[in-house]
Formats: sequence, C-alpha cells, structure tokens
Amino acid sequence: MGSLGTNPMSFSAIPDDKAAFEPLNPEDVRAYLHKAVDFISDYYTNIESMPVLPNVKPGYLQDELSASPTSEAMLVTLVAARDAALRRSGSVGVSNIPRLAVYAADQTHSTFFKACRLAGFDPANIRSIPTGPETNYGLDPAKLLEVMQADVDAGLVPTYVCATVGTTSSNAVDPVGAVADVASMFNAWVHVDAAYAGSACICPEFRHHLDGVERVDSISMSPHKWLLTCLDCTCLYVRDAHRLSDSLETNPEYLKNDATDSGEVTDLKDMQVGVGRRFRGLKLWMVMRTYGTAKLQEHIRSDVAMAKMFEDFVHADDRFEVVVPRNFALVCFRIKGSGAMTEEDADEANRLLMENLNKTGKAYLAHTVVGDKFVLRFAVGSSLQEERHVRSAWDLIRKTTTGRYQRN
Amino acid sequence: MGSLGTNPMSFSAIPDDKAAFEPLNPEDVRAYLHKAVDFISDYYTNIESMPVLPNVKPGYLQDELSASPTSEAMLVTLVAARDAALRRSGSVGVSNIPRLAVYAADQTHSTFFKACRLAGFDPANIRSIPTGPETNYGLDPAKLLEVMQADVDAGLVPTYVCATVGTTSSNAVDPVGAVADVASMFNAWVHVDAAYAGSACICPEFRHHLDGVERVDSISMSPHKWLLTCLDCTCLYVRDAHRLSDSLETNPEYLKNDATDSGEVTDLKDMQVGVGRRFRGLKLWMVMRTYGTAKLQEHIRSDVAMAKMFEDFVHADDRFEVVVPRNFALVCFRIKGSGAMTEEDADEANRLLMENLNKTGKAYLAHTVVGDKFVLRFAVGSSLQEERHVRSAWDLIRKTTTGRYQRN
Repeated sequence: MGSLGTNPMSFSAIPDDKAAFEPLNPEDVRAYLHKAVDFISDYYTNIESMPVLPNVKPGYLQDELSASPTSEAMLVTLVAARDAALRRSGSVGVSNIPRLAVYAADQTHSTFFKACRLAGFDPANIRSIPTGPETNYGLDPAKLLEVMQADVDAGLVPTYVCATVGTTSSNAVDPVGAVADVASMFNAWVHVDAAYAGSACICPEFRHHLDGVERVDSISMSPHKWLLTCLDCTCLYVRDAHRLSDSLETNPEYLKNDATDSGEVTDLKDMQVGVGRRFRGLKLWMVMRTYGTAKLQEHIRSDVAMAKMFEDFVHADDRFEVVVPRNFALVCFRIKGSGAMTEEDADEANRLLMENLNKTGKAYLAHTVVGDKFVLRFAVGSSLQEERHVRSAWDLIRKTTTGRYQRN
Repeated sequence: MGSLGTNPMSFSAIPDDKAAFEPLNPEDVRAYLHKAVDFISDYYTNIESMPVLPNVKPGYLQDELSASPTSEAMLVTLVAARDAALRRSGSVGVSNIPRLAVYAADQTHSTFFKACRLAGFDPANIRSIPTGPETNYGLDPAKLLEVMQADVDAGLVPTYVCATVGTTSSNAVDPVGAVADVASMFNAWVHVDAAYAGSACICPEFRHHLDGVERVDSISMSPHKWLLTCLDCTCLYVRDAHRLSDSLETNPEYLKNDATDSGEVTDLKDMQVGVGRRFRGLKLWMVMRTYGTAKLQEHIRSDVAMAKMFEDFVHADDRFEVVVPRNFALVCFRIKGSGAMTEEDADEANRLLMENLNKTGKAYLAHTVVGDKFVLRFAVGSSLQEERHVRSAWDLIRKTTTGRYQRN
C-alpha cells in the first residue's frame, strides 16, 4: 500500500543532534500534515487497486516498539498476579480471593485502588501504607515489610505491590529495589508505575530512580505524559508475558489465524482487556524517529531546568515554601503559614491564589494535599513551554498574592 | 479557541436526504482534511494568545452524545453488578464472590468470558449455555431459567446475564425481552451486547430485535463496527449510572474541581477503568452531523441489500448452503456435504476455498464453526463497498471452487 516516503527528519527545522531541543515549528507541522492528508486521500481514491490484506510478513516491523493501552497496565498485571497467587495457594476457582492482599503507598495513583476493586480484591485487604515527610512521601520498605508480615500472620496471601516512580500528587519516588527485596520474601508481584517519570529515565542522570528494576515483574510508563506523544499511549513491560496471557487469553474460532497458530506473532489481544486495538505504538515510534534520543533527553532536561528555575524563585521569596523536594519537573509549593497566619489561614490563602490565578486564563495551577497541607503544583511539561513563560507565570503568581496575604 | 466553522454538510458531494447513501467522495475528503490541517497549524501557531483553559461552561455541548470506551462496557457493568450482588447478599467485602454466577449463550463474544475472569468471577460459575439450530443459535430462555434455578438451588447467586443482538460468529440474536423476564426473577443484571447489530437498529425494520430493551440494565453498541466511525468508539447506556460510579468512583485530591463538586457535570472517569479519556464521542457526532439519520439508515439498508443479494447467489448454487438464516449483513455459508462428499470432506473443501480465495488478495473471507461445521463468513460493511464488488466476489468464489469440489 506504499508509504509516505518522507522521513520527518528531513524537515528543515529539525535541529541536528547537538543543538538544543526545539519542538516542531508550526510551518513544518503544517507541511507534514498536508502531506499526510494527500497520502490518506490518495489511498482512499485508489483503494480498489490494492490487495485486501497487506502483503507483509509478521515481524516486518521489528523496529516498532511494543506498547499496551490506556490504565489497563495495572489491571492486567493485577489479574495475572491474582491468578498466579490463586494457583500457588491451591485455590479451587476463586475461593481464596478473600485471602489475597495488595499493597501500595498512600500517594499511589487512584487508578491502582480502582483496579484492585475491579479485579475483585477485598477492599479490606487493599493496604494503603502511610507515608510522611521523613521519606519525602515515598514508600518506607520497613513499614511495607511489617504490614506484609502481619498479613501473613493473619492468614492472608501477599499478592501484589505497586511502587511508583514519580507520584501524580507530588512526584514522590518509592524505592524500587528495596520494595522488590521485601516483596520477594513473600513471592508477591511487583509492578512499577513510572507513568510520568519513566520519560525522565531516558536520561542517565535520572535512571537511578529505577535502581532494582531488574528484580520487578512489570513496569509501565506513559509517553503521552511527558514524551511528546498524544493521549493515549502507555508502554507496559512484563518480565514473563505468559503470566499475562495465562489470565487473558481467548481463542474463539472466528479469531483463529495462521500467523497466531504458527507462534510467529505475539497476539496482543491476549495481554489486554479487549480484542480491538489501535496502533498506538506508531505515535511513539514517530516521536522517536523524528527527534532521536539526544533531542528527547534535551526536552526532558530543559523542562527540569525550567522547573528548577521556578523552584529557585520560590526559595527566594520568603512568603512561600517548597513543600517537598523537587525530583523532576513538578514544583510543590505554597504560601507558608508564619506569624499571625496559621496553617489553616495559609491553606485558605493558597486556595484563593489558585482560584484568582486560574481566572486570569494566563496560567493554570492544580493542587494537592500533602501532609494535611493544601499545596499548589507548578508543572513544566508542555512541548511549547519556554523560560519566558515560567518567568511570567511566577510574576503573575507574585502579583496575585496580595491583600491580607501580602509579604509580612 | 475558535472552531473550524465549516459545516461538513456544505460540501458539494453530500447528497440530500432523499438520495441514496454515498460515502464522502475522495476530493471532499481531501479538501476537508486540508482545512482541518490548517486549523490545527493555526492553533499551534497562535496558542500563546489563547486562554489556558477553554472558556466554556459545563454542558455547553448538550448535543454531544455520551460514549464510553474500548470492550470496557462489559467489564464495568459486570463489576457494578458484582458489587450490587455482594451488597444484596450481605457479603462483608468479597467473601461471597465464589458464590456469584454469570450467564451467556455459547455464541457470546469471547470478551464476555474474559471480562468475567478479570472481575474475579469463579470460572466454574461462568455459565456458557449451549445453543443450536432450533433457535438459530440464539439463547433459549427456557434453558436459561433452568440453569439459573439450578444455581439458586445449589446456593449460588445469579448476578449477570449477557444477551447478544448479532453475535460475531453468525449474527445470532438472543431474545432480549424473554431474557430480561427470566433474569428479573433472580434480580440479575441484564446487559445487551449489540456491538455490531445495534447500528442496524437505527432502522425501524430492525428495531424489533431490541424488543424488551426497556427492561434491561445496560446496552452497548460500537459505531466503529458498522456506523462509519473509526476504531475505537463504543456507546454504553446504563439505566442507573450511579450503579457504575458506586463501583468505579475515585476522588483523589489532585482531581477535585468545582465543576464536579457542583454536580453540574458527569465525571466519566467514575464510569470507566482509567482516568484519562480521548474524546471519542466527537467522531460519532461528526458522522451523525455529516450524514444525518436518513443517510445512515440508507447506508445500513444498502449493506443489508447487498448481503441479501449474496445470500440469493448462494441459494441458487446447489454446491452451497446458507448455514444460518441471515439477520443483518453477514452471510454464513459453506460448500455442503452431499453424495460422496462427507461433512468432513466439506469442511476441508471450505478451508481450502478460504485459503485459495484469500491468497488472491481480491477478497477476504473469515470463518467460524457453527454446529460443528466449518463455515465461511461473507460480511458486507465497508463504506466503499458496491454491488459490483459483491458480484465479483461471488464470481471469484465460484471460480475458486473447482477440482474435486466441482459441481456434482
């Protein structure tokens, strides 16, 4: 069926590998999309002249990277871990489901707790382990060990631990290696959710956050969060893919085909909830081919540098505090309580600042609650963001912090 | 942020409502896509001049149709039904999960059985009820009643029945009203999977297949199958949406917002597995706006007429048989066993015909097994398909049916 034939790298504005990261310029975007439209239209016009099935061999796209869908990563690995634990415990059917327990830090994304309920785990056995400032809101492996051991003593079966590298709330990092060591004592599945910060780990200087990853069972990262790829695209790597297909395989007659029967192809329907599947990997492949490793690393580094600049602005203004140390490109900060301003007053001041700022339509702050404090989140991550935008956002924040919450 | 401003209806090739269905012609596709590219490029160029958040009110898109994602429809309704049954049975946590039972005809899509396992139902309590030619492979309500009553007698809790309108294998139709009547005796959730044939029900003459739908709990249909909408887009209608959000709601601090708190909006994250969500409803809205009801009905009718024409060709050639009566635009047919040709010989002949035909690259036949017979599936459904394609496909099938399988 032919192909576009034009390597996006040939567009003039793609900088060479030594230059700084620059997003595609608007005129290149326009030119490339118009070319794509003509390709689609020509295909639509000439469709009758083409074979019904593509004449390619399974595996011809060896360079294409495997990618699995949407928040499903947690659900499918949970189900695989559940079924493996049921088999190990000698359960007939699901009769032991009420004995299975799962673990994650209280900062873990809400999707984890939802996926546990979807997979039939007893809400009473879903452990949300408290974190605090002493571990920068990361999971404490000693506490994890204590909770898992107590469950075993009570007759439960530890089944699955979710460790997060870069939580949504504050970018906290659970210690992957230490969590894997604890989980291995109980034969529990370890999943690493690196949805956001996994992108940063393409840079060597951030890779230490994944130390110990060679001992986990699965890891997911979502290039749509911070790697220039449109929603939705999540990569799921599983140590032993058979553990997924053991739980998720279906083989109805109308889906049987020679390629699958021969074992030449990996049938991704056996690793996901549904059967149909969009080609999400292509988006990521295009991003990687367009920019290359060096440019993508520069994109991450430039975002982190802008976040660090913002963090320095916050540090330099004594009305504000940085609430948790910055790990990546998210700064968690707030107007701090001091003098006559109680922490409760400060919460209210931060809420008002957020509301007034968002009303301007010039910038957007989201919030979270960390250690009982209402905290503002300044996130760098848009592909078109530049230093001048960060400076003007900070100016706007300072200007908006007025009235009874003025510098004291 | 502005909008394209051009109503696709204004394109010259969109026929008026009285004319026959015609897909968009290639030159209109080309022109409209180029316009869209310029819109995207202009937006990308001028993004700094726009507010960070759109200045629209919740609900401004009243005309937009609700649509929920990918094979999730069965999973989320199963989980809602599971949790409702657990609450009714007075279960603490999930301790009663091993007592819950679910039901569907053996012709039901494999996704149903997978979703049951995902949701933690005991494989031993997932009932696949045998069907046969006496009901044209639709679910027999008397058999359903018998199986459900036997389960109750054995101490199980009937929880969920999946009825299909238009199975993937042979387009069989389960009797929706009768199934709902049986299920109501046991307080079980009834879901109707009308993924494919739901599209046909936009025509009054097919709507009787949904008789009784007002008594079910949920129904799903996938416009990407037969309503000119690209993969993926599934609509899920649920009688009481609270029963979904009871099981699927999450409320982390970082997702809290005024619109949700005010109750002004329906937060779709509480009705699906994940949090992130593409705007799939827009594709369907564009299709409806572009073609209108009359043209979409004509699209369905024209496909059904072509399938009927193919069915007539099969009837007129005594080497072949139509294996199950055609309901929509799928014809299940085969070279029949007769004389010296046993049914096993015929299976082999059909397999060979399929292989040789698919090798030509001119047409594509898939197969199924119905009542132990290897059956060929001729499906009409591509938006560009015309009568001449059906005629030439049949000519090719006849030409390919040669050698020892020649007319006897």
